[in-house]
Amino acid sequence: MKLLLVLFSSLFLNAYFYFCLFLHQHKQPASLGWTGSAATEAEAVAAVNCSGHGRAFLDGVLAGDGLPVCECNKCYYGSDCSRLLHDCPADVDSGDPLFLEAYWQQQAASSAVVFSGWHRMSYSTDGKDYITIELEKHIRILHKVVGNAVTDGKFIVFGSGSAQLINALVYALSQSNASSSPASVVASVPYYPLYKKQTNLFETREYGWGGTTSNWANASVSSVTNFIEFVTSPNNPDGEFKQPVLGSSAVIFDHAYYWPHYSPILDPADEDVMLFTNSKISGHAGSRFGWAVIKDEGVYERTTKYLSLNTVGVSRDTHLRVLKLIKVMITEKGGKGDIFEFGYRTLKARWSKLQELVSSSSRFSLQQLSAHYCNYFRTIRDPSPAYAWLRCEWKEDEDCHEALRKASIISRSGPLFEAGSQYTRLSLIKTQDDFDLLLKRMQPLVSQEEMASS
Amino acid sequence: MKLLLVLFSSLFLNAYFYFCLFLHQHKQPASLGWTGSAATEAEAVAAVNCSGHGRAFLDGVLAGDGLPVCECNKCYYGSDCSRLLHDCPADVDSGDPLFLEAYWQQQAASSAVVFSGWHRMSYSTDGKDYITIELEKHIRILHKVVGNAVTDGKFIVFGSGSAQLINALVYALSQSNASSSPASVVASVPYYPLYKKQTNLFETREYGWGGTTSNWANASVSSVTNFIEFVTSPNNPDGEFKQPVLGSSAVIFDHAYYWPHYSPILDPADEDVMLFTNSKISGHAGSRFGWAVIKDEGVYERTTKYLSLNTVGVSRDTHLRVLKLIKVMITEKGGKGDIFEFGYRTLKARWSKLQELVSSSSRFSLQQLSAHYCNYFRTIRDPSPAYAWLRCEWKEDEDCHEALRKASIISRSGPLFEAGSQYTRLSLIKTQDDFDLLLKRMQPLVSQEEMASS
Repeated sequence: MKLLLVLFSSLFLNAYFYFCLFLHQHKQPASLGWTGSAATEAEAVAAVNCSGHGRAFLDGVLAGDGLPVCECNKCYYGSDCSRLLHDCPADVDSGDPLFLEAYWQQQAASSAVVFSGWHRMSYSTDGKDYITIELEKHIRILHKVVGNAVTDGKFIVFGSGSAQLINALVYALSQSNASSSPASVVASVPYYPLYKKQTNLFETREYGWGGTTSNWANASVSSVTNFIEFVTSPNNPDGEFKQPVLGSSAVIFDHAYYWPHYSPILDPADEDVMLFTNSKISGHAGSRFGWAVIKDEGVYERTTKYLSLNTVGVSRDTHLRVLKLIKVMITEKGGKGDIFEFGYRTLKARWSKLQELVSSSSRFSLQQLSAHYCNYFRTIRDPSPAYAWLRCEWKEDEDCHEALRKASIISRSGPLFEAGSQYTRLSLIKTQDDFDLLLKRMQPLVSQEEMASS
Repeated sequence: MKLLLVLFSSLFLNAYFYFCLFLHQHKQPASLGWTGSAATEAEAVAAVNCSGHGRAFLDGVLAGDGLPVCECNKCYYGSDCSRLLHDCPADVDSGDPLFLEAYWQQQAASSAVVFSGWHRMSYSTDGKDYITIELEKHIRILHKVVGNAVTDGKFIVFGSGSAQLINALVYALSQSNASSSPASVVASVPYYPLYKKQTNLFETREYGWGGTTSNWANASVSSVTNFIEFVTSPNNPDGEFKQPVLGSSAVIFDHAYYWPHYSPILDPADEDVMLFTNSKISGHAGSRFGWAVIKDEGVYERTTKYLSLNTVGVSRDTHLRVLKLIKVMITEKGGKGDIFEFGYRTLKARWSKLQELVSSSSRFSLQQLSAHYCNYFRTIRDPSPAYAWLRCEWKEDEDCHEALRKASIISRSGPLFEAGSQYTRLSLIKTQDDFDLLLKRMQPLVSQEEMASS
């Protein structure tokens, strides 16, 4: 009897093991071949514990255990980023879009990509001018799904970030004006500093920096001078919708922030030259990928000529990665994994916390933004700007950037945007740690005031 | 007794199953999580049958079966690239380094990389000026292992291909000369056309294209004019080792082809400004990655300023991929998987076949290259140039490019390198299909001659 029991138990175990083995094979239909070790390596690196204040990367510096070290958020240190540096300044200077890192960590399975060693080695791609057909197609779908831009009947060019496209478009547009005088590149205050920096660096006989539009608006020359006007809408730094002011023959609309994270989506933009950057959509600033939507064929061809001579197109590695990211963004639209919903929710919360703090004080003020109906969310949405455009209201804080710096807050000074020094920009799109530290450092500035007034 | 036999069999089976399960887990310690579906997808795409005359890519256009289509080599077509187009010209125009694709297909497991969705999203990296520390370190190791360049005590900058670095370096060097007159960018005939094209496109008040060195060599002005001289060594198109000829204050040594695939390695190059491109090392032209090795800190800083404003550095995606490729190249050095051995063997065979064909004819001649001792292979090696610099010897073939075109061979015409039209360049570094077709199309040209002489 005992023997029978052992036998049945053993047979049962046989069945169980067989089932396990079979099930296991069923779950992974073809067991992994050449991708196996790369996948195992990537998972090991992703599993490195950085306490939620950092992350390890496959190409990071190696620690003693053979795995890459944690790269910690600002102000955190230690092998697992668990230690907070005292008296560390809140750095809200750059527009580094790390607020979306958490989103992609949630989308780990759907956003991973495996590169084979022989992936797109050629200069050529399957599309024209070093672009891949599927990526271009998915960019058009993304615009349609979001409803922020009309791309039908227009050309699309890829750039190594929209940064590369700034001067590529200036070059292309300066060649299209028949006038013999060089084109003046202009923008309205406050404006994104790279327009001026790049134009000054790359200045040629065909174009140069022309200063701010206000210098020209009332001048009688404006009707005879060739302008290439940058219009950033919503604007960086203040989030305002903008229009060209000079009646310029050529306008470059930079719509970097015209996405539902940052802005209500009103009508789809339908201008002749529009600039977008993936850095501010998926948050992959490090990938260096942007695009321009161009109506005129001549402008398009001059832009591609520039891009072809400058860098022979954009990294094909980045093409594949961005395609995967855009596919996720399109697929998850409207569901729990909607990146725009995630981005909006995050930035709205940050904005309202900052606003609450600032409004308790007469020392500072923020730009006025109101709730708007959004065609993407199909509802009225609250403001959720990428940046706070802070104004120091006290006379002794004339240099607002400096006043904050003394309180251990690193911001981007108004004069860099050619605005007054009473303004400074606070980035709200960095890591949660950066934002939390900003609030912590702002608090005493407001409290000082309360003490002063009491 | 029977019962006992069954029992023992069953127990044995259990032990076996247990062992299987255990072993299986041991081979894949943590069974794959978030990388699983990306890995499965990549393997499915890699398994698409393109008959050895094409390949499918993850970001290719999808076929009816949901998998990407085969992208066929030139002259091949059909859903599996198995059909050869009749009367298709041999295209040996571009320097597309696809001869190395087969190498990476052999190194599938070691060269694969998995990108997590959150890989290096930030503008910042762990190194200075948007470079990653490990990649820079491995570039230095690669130079040491190959023995082709001294990098100790020098700076390294990354570019989106060496193409981007051409003008970045011209900019940096033009700013370092104290003279008030603009610098003249020059090169010796025959030279790589992009030097001139880029300089003309980006020309500023500080520099412009100055033409060929022979225009200046004997002129009395040469001692007072600022030159930025490009020296490509080994030279593109003719594979010759070159030296600067003008005693220029600034020289950019382009060592794109100073690797054991193409050239004997003599002494390590030790110049102040050296240019390299991964396109011609690993063959990943599509990744857009190159670097410059720079001695002077001022030149280095101006170069990084340019790169930072032009594209905010190079795609961090490409950093990771190139790191993996360089690791494979270093690890496999001297063994069966040595990429330099593979490259040398392939190109030597191509060169000797072409040479044999051409030498049977008085119609054409090739550049003279001889065997040399190579410090990398530690033996005398035969020539294996990247390009054949073909000369048409007959008077009626005065335009050599055109003569070949009539015979369905697309080459790169001598005048593009500012050489005579009796010269044309044949690329030997494209796919095996391209090379085979070249030989097939050359054959009748030689036979015609035999017929004519007989």
